[in-house]
Amino acid sequence: MEGVDHLADERNKAQFDVDDMKIVWAGSRHAYELSDRISRLVASDPEFKKDHVTSLGRKELFKNTLRKAAHGWKRINELGLNEEEALKLRTFMDQPSFTDLHWGMFVPAIKGQGTDEQQQQWLPLANKMQIIGCYAQTELGHGSNVQGLETTATFDVKTDEFVLNSPTLTSSKWWPGGLGKISTHAVVYARLIINDKDYGVHGFIAQLRSLDDHLPLPGITIGDIGMKFGSAAYNSMDNGLLRFDHVRIPRNQMLMRVSQVTREGKYVHSSVPRQLVYGTMVYVRQIIVFDASVALSRAVCIATRYSAVRRQFGSQNGSPETQVIDYKTQQARLFPLLASAYAFRFAGEWLKWLYTDVMERLQAKDFSTLPEAHACTAGLKSLTTSVAADGIEECRKLCGGHGYLCSSGLPELFAVYIPACTYEGDNVVLLLQVARYLMKAISQLNSGNKPVGTTAYLGRAEQLMQYHSDVLRAEDWLKPNVVVEAFEARAARMSMACAQNLSKFNNPEDGFQELSADLIEAATAHCQLIVVSKFIEKLQQDIPGKGVKQQLQVLCSIYALFLLHKHIGDFLSTDCITPKQGSLANEQLRSLYSQIRPNAIALVDAFNHTDHYLGSILGRYDGNVYPKLYEAAWKDPLNDTVIPDGFHQYVQPLLKQQLRNARL
Amino acid sequence: MEGVDHLADERNKAQFDVDDMKIVWAGSRHAYELSDRISRLVASDPEFKKDHVTSLGRKELFKNTLRKAAHGWKRINELGLNEEEALKLRTFMDQPSFTDLHWGMFVPAIKGQGTDEQQQQWLPLANKMQIIGCYAQTELGHGSNVQGLETTATFDVKTDEFVLNSPTLTSSKWWPGGLGKISTHAVVYARLIINDKDYGVHGFIAQLRSLDDHLPLPGITIGDIGMKFGSAAYNSMDNGLLRFDHVRIPRNQMLMRVSQVTREGKYVHSSVPRQLVYGTMVYVRQIIVFDASVALSRAVCIATRYSAVRRQFGSQNGSPETQVIDYKTQQARLFPLLASAYAFRFAGEWLKWLYTDVMERLQAKDFSTLPEAHACTAGLKSLTTSVAADGIEECRKLCGGHGYLCSSGLPELFAVYIPACTYEGDNVVLLLQVARYLMKAISQLNSGNKPVGTTAYLGRAEQLMQYHSDVLRAEDWLKPNVVVEAFEARAARMSMACAQNLSKFNNPEDGFQELSADLIEAATAHCQLIVVSKFIEKLQQDIPGKGVKQQLQVLCSIYALFLLHKHIGDFLSTDCITPKQGSLANEQLRSLYSQIRPNAIALVDAFNHTDHYLGSILGRYDGNVYPKLYEAAWKDPLNDTVIPDGFHQYVQPLLKQQLRNARL
Repeated sequence: MEGVDHLADERNKAQFDVDDMKIVWAGSRHAYELSDRISRLVASDPEFKKDHVTSLGRKELFKNTLRKAAHGWKRINELGLNEEEALKLRTFMDQPSFTDLHWGMFVPAIKGQGTDEQQQQWLPLANKMQIIGCYAQTELGHGSNVQGLETTATFDVKTDEFVLNSPTLTSSKWWPGGLGKISTHAVVYARLIINDKDYGVHGFIAQLRSLDDHLPLPGITIGDIGMKFGSAAYNSMDNGLLRFDHVRIPRNQMLMRVSQVTREGKYVHSSVPRQLVYGTMVYVRQIIVFDASVALSRAVCIATRYSAVRRQFGSQNGSPETQVIDYKTQQARLFPLLASAYAFRFAGEWLKWLYTDVMERLQAKDFSTLPEAHACTAGLKSLTTSVAADGIEECRKLCGGHGYLCSSGLPELFAVYIPACTYEGDNVVLLLQVARYLMKAISQLNSGNKPVGTTAYLGRAEQLMQYHSDVLRAEDWLKPNVVVEAFEARAARMSMACAQNLSKFNNPEDGFQELSADLIEAATAHCQLIVVSKFIEKLQQDIPGKGVKQQLQVLCSIYALFLLHKHIGDFLSTDCITPKQGSLANEQLRSLYSQIRPNAIALVDAFNHTDHYLGSILGRYDGNVYPKLYEAAWKDPLNDTVIPDGFHQYVQPLLKQQLRNARL
Repeated sequence: MEGVDHLADERNKAQFDVDDMKIVWAGSRHAYELSDRISRLVASDPEFKKDHVTSLGRKELFKNTLRKAAHGWKRINELGLNEEEALKLRTFMDQPSFTDLHWGMFVPAIKGQGTDEQQQQWLPLANKMQIIGCYAQTELGHGSNVQGLETTATFDVKTDEFVLNSPTLTSSKWWPGGLGKISTHAVVYARLIINDKDYGVHGFIAQLRSLDDHLPLPGITIGDIGMKFGSAAYNSMDNGLLRFDHVRIPRNQMLMRVSQVTREGKYVHSSVPRQLVYGTMVYVRQIIVFDASVALSRAVCIATRYSAVRRQFGSQNGSPETQVIDYKTQQARLFPLLASAYAFRFAGEWLKWLYTDVMERLQAKDFSTLPEAHACTAGLKSLTTSVAADGIEECRKLCGGHGYLCSSGLPELFAVYIPACTYEGDNVVLLLQVARYLMKAISQLNSGNKPVGTTAYLGRAEQLMQYHSDVLRAEDWLKPNVVVEAFEARAARMSMACAQNLSKFNNPEDGFQELSADLIEAATAHCQLIVVSKFIEKLQQDIPGKGVKQQLQVLCSIYALFLLHKHIGDFLSTDCITPKQGSLANEQLRSLYSQIRPNAIALVDAFNHTDHYLGSILGRYDGNVYPKLYEAAWKDPLNDTVIPDGFHQYVQPLLKQQLRNARL
C-alpha cells in the first residue's frame, strides 16, 4: 500500500487550482518557495526526526533537543542560510529550544532597546552564538502587570555600576525560556533605582554563567522551573528561575536607547521616541496572529484529512460506512475552523502592512494612529490565539478516540500552542484594553475627535444605531456589504450600550470593573468585525488562479455567518437583525458547507505542510492511516520487551497470590 | 511560614457552615465519612506520593504505576477494606492503572452478562486478582459504531469451540486499558458466526497470556498502542492492541446470560430481558456524571484558591495588588463553573435514583420508561463531560502562566479527563440520540402517547408555544418557576422548530442529517433544562445546616442565569424573553457573583479534597503557593546537575566556536 494516495479521489474533486492557492496562503511566491524549500530540507534530514520524543523522560528529551538545536545551527552555517531561511529552519524543526528565545527575544531586545554602541558590542557575539541569551521579564509573583516587577537595579555612583537584586521570593525571575540550564546572558527587566528614587522598569544585560565552565556567576541562583503541559511540548525548553543577590554589572549594560543614566547618576531621555515600544508590540503581535493561523491550519489539516479517511455508521447492506466528513455535525464544527485559519492568515497579512505603516509614521514623528494600532493588535492577538487554542482541541475531538494518541499530533500541538493565550498579554487583559480604547473613542465622538483605522465605523455610530438589516432571502447573506453592516451595527451598539451603562457610575473605574464582562463581549464583537472586514477587503483584490477567489469567497461567508450564528444573541438583542434573518443566515451556512465539502482536502493541502511538520499519522498526506498507526504503536518503549519492567516485582506476586510475602 | 493558613481570612468570610455543606456535597454522612477517611489514608501513605511522575519516561512511569497498584492491593487486603472502600482507595490513588479496567469493566461485564455458572467460575479468580482482565471492545477502525465491529467468533460444532479471529487490520482491538502489557484475560466483543450466519456482536472471555510466564498465548498478538495526551495522565495505563489468528476458546466462554449457543450450534435467547443492557448503561453513565462533577470540582477548587492568593494590578501607593478573584472578569468565568460543579453533583444524585427506578421496573418487566431514561442519561453524560473538560482548561487559563506548570495539577487533570468526552458514546453522537428521541416524542404528541419523565414538559407544548416571560425586574429571575418556564419554553420551541423543519423533507433521514447541527442545539437546550430542574428540585428538599441552602440557591441561580446569558440567542430567537429581560438576567447575575464572592473559598473547601488528591501547588489548602512552587521546581530531574546532560557535547562547541570541528 506504500505510495498509494488514499485521498486521490478527494483531491480530484477540487474545483480550484491548489498550487495557486498555496501562493495565496503563503502570501507571495517568494514566501511559498522559501517555506516549501526549507520545510522539505528539514523533513528529509534524519537528525530532525520527531519519533517518540513524547515517550522520553525529561533529561533525555532535553538532551535530544540540544542535539537538534546544535545540528540545526550546523546546517544553517554549512548551507550559508540567511536570517529568513534560518528562522524557517528553526520553525520547521518544530521542537522548542533555547535558540527560540535567543533569536526571538534576546537579539531583538538589544536591537530595539540598545544604543548603537551596545549593538556593536553585543550583537556580533550573539549572532555567532558565542553568547546565548534569554529574556528575563516575568517574576514568580508578577506576570501581566509589568510595572509591578520587584527586581531592582540600583545605581552605585561610586563604582559606576548597577546592583541587581531580588529582594523577595516573589521577585524571582520565573518562566524565561532558555534561562534554566543554557543561557549565558539575559536581558533582565528591573526597577531602576537612583538615589532611592524609583524610575520604573528598565532593561539590563546581565551575564549569568561563566563562559569557561558554564557555572552560574557569584550571587546568581538559577534553575529549571519543572515540567509543563504535555508530553514533550515545551518540556524541551529550560524555562527557568533566577535570583540575584546583589550582582553588579557595569553602567553601560543598561539598555540605553530611549533613556540613559549618566556617570553622575542623572536619568535622561534620549531623542528616540518612547513610542517605539508600540512599534515593537505591533511587530510581535503580527507574528503571533500569523502563528495562530499556522497552528490552527495544522490542526484543521489533520482533522480534515482524517475525517475523509475515517468511516463510521451508515453502512447499508455491506457497503462501506460513511466518511465522517460527510456528516453535517462534523462539517459544522470543522469548516468554520478551516475558514478561521484562512481568515486569520489575511488578518495577519494586513497587520504586516499596519506595522510598516506605523513605523513610517513613527519615523515622521506622527503618533496619531498609535493608540488605535495598539488596541487593534491587542484585540487580534487575543481573538486569534483563543480561537486557535480552542480550535486545536476541537480538531482533536473531531478525530474521535485516536485524536487522544500522541501519534495524532494533536495533543502536542495543543500543549505547545496554548501558552500563546497567556504570553505577550493575557487574552482577557488585552480585551479589556481594547474595550478601554473603544470607550474612549466613543466618549470623544462629540468633541470632534474622529475615530481612525479599525474604529472608523464608530464615526457613523448615529447611523448604525438606526440600522436594520434588509435581508430577505438566504442568499442576501452572501453580499459583503450586508455582512459588514450587520457586524458594524452589532459592534457599535454593544459598545454604545456599555458606554451608556458606564455613564451611570459616579466613578468610571468602578463602572469599568463592574461591567467588565460586558465590555469584553463588546471588544470581541469589535475584533470579529476587523477580521471579517479584512477578509472581505482581501477579496476585493485581484487574486489569480482558477477557482481560487471563489473558494475564498465561500470561506469568507462561512467565517462571517458562523460567527453570526454563534453570537446570534448579540445581533438579536441589539436588534440588528430579526430571528427570521438569523435563521436565513443559518440556512445559507448549511448550503455553504455543502459547497466547500468537495474542496476541503485541497484547501488543507494548500497549507503545504509536510508530513514531518504535521507530525501526525491521522493527517498524513496519503491518508494511509491505519497501517501506520499500527506500525507506530510498536515503537513505544513499552513494547521493547514482551514482559514490562516491574512485572515480576509488582504484578506476578498478585497473580501467584504471594502478595503478602512479596517485598513491595 | 509552615502551618500558617494564608486563606484564613477568606474562610472567616463564609456565611454558611462548611461542615454541613460537605455532607450535602458528598450526598450523605456515610459517603462523606468514607471519602474523608480513605482520602486521608492515601494522602498520608508515602508510597502513594505523586511527586514528579510527570517527568518520568514511559517505562519508568509504567513501573511506578505497577508499584502503586500493587501497594494499593496490599493495603486493601491488609486493612480488610470492603468493595466500596477499595474503590475509593483506587480513586484517591489518582493514577490510572490496569486495575481500573479489571474492577471497573471486566468484573462487571462478567457479573452483568455471565450466567450463574460463569460467574461462579470466573469471579472468585478475578476477585482475588489471580487473573487480571480487561474489556476489549473498540477496534482500530471502529469506535462509536459497535455494530460495525469486525472481529469474529465462529462456532465450530465439531470441537464445541469458538474461533476468535481478526480478519483485517482495522479489526485489531485498539484502546482497551490494561490490555497492552498486563491483562491475562479479556472480555472480547466479536461477531458471533454460526453456520455462516452473523448473529451480531457478543461478549466472550478469552485468555490472552500464560499464567506461568505471562507470554501471549499462541495466535495472539498484543502490544501497547503508544503515548497519549499529557505527561503522565493515561500513559500510566497500558492501553493495548490485540489481534487473534484463529484462537480457539471453549463454548462456555461466551457470556450467555441473555443469549446462548447450544452444543448443537443453535442460537437461543434466555428469559433474561435484553433491556438489561439499558440498566447497565444508566448505571455507567450515572457514574460518569458523578465523575464529571468531581473532575470539575478539583479544577474549580484549584482556580478559586489560587485566585484568592494571586494578586495583579490595582496597587495604589504601595498597597498590595488586587486579588484576582475580585475582578469581575475572573468571577464571570469562575463562578459559573463552581455552580456547574454543584449542579452536576445533584444531577448525578438524581441519576442514581433513576438507576434504582429503572432496575425496579425492569424486575417488574415494565420497559415503558427505558427509552426516556436512555435518552436522558445519554444527554447528561454528553453535557456534563463536555462542560467539565472545557471547564478544566478554563480553570487552567484562570490561573494565568502558572496554570501551565504541571505543579498546578491542571494540565494532568485535563489530560486525564478529556477521554470522558469520547468513551461510552461520543458526546456528539449521544446528543443526536437525544434529538432523535425528542423528535419521536413530538411526532407522537397527537397520538396520545404522553411524554414521560424529563420530557413530560413536551406534553404542554401548546401552552409553552404561547409562553412569554413576565419578568419585570432583575430579582424576578430568582424565582425558580420563572427560570424553569423560560428553559422549558426555549427547549420546547427549539425541538418543535426542528420537528417542523424535518417535516419538510421527503426522506426523514435526509432531513435528520441535514439539520443535525440544529438538532444538537435543541438536544443541548433539553439537557440544560434537566440539570436546572434537578437543581431546583434538590432545593425543594429539606437541607440542614446554617446558610447551606441559601448558598445553594445562589449557585442554582448563577447556573441558570449564566446559561441563559450564554445562550441568549436561543431565548431571543424563540421569543421566550425580550432583550430587556435578558439584560435584567445579566444584571442579576452580576449581583449574584458579588453575593457568592465571600463564600467562594468555603464552597470549594466543601468538596473536601486533600492536597494529595488535588495534586496542585496552586490549589493548596493553606494557600502557601509561592514558596512551594519554588521548592518544587528544584526537584525536576533537570536540576539534578548544574550542567545539563548534553551541554558539553552540543552547546559548548557553539559557544567556543568549535562547531565545525565538533562531531554532532
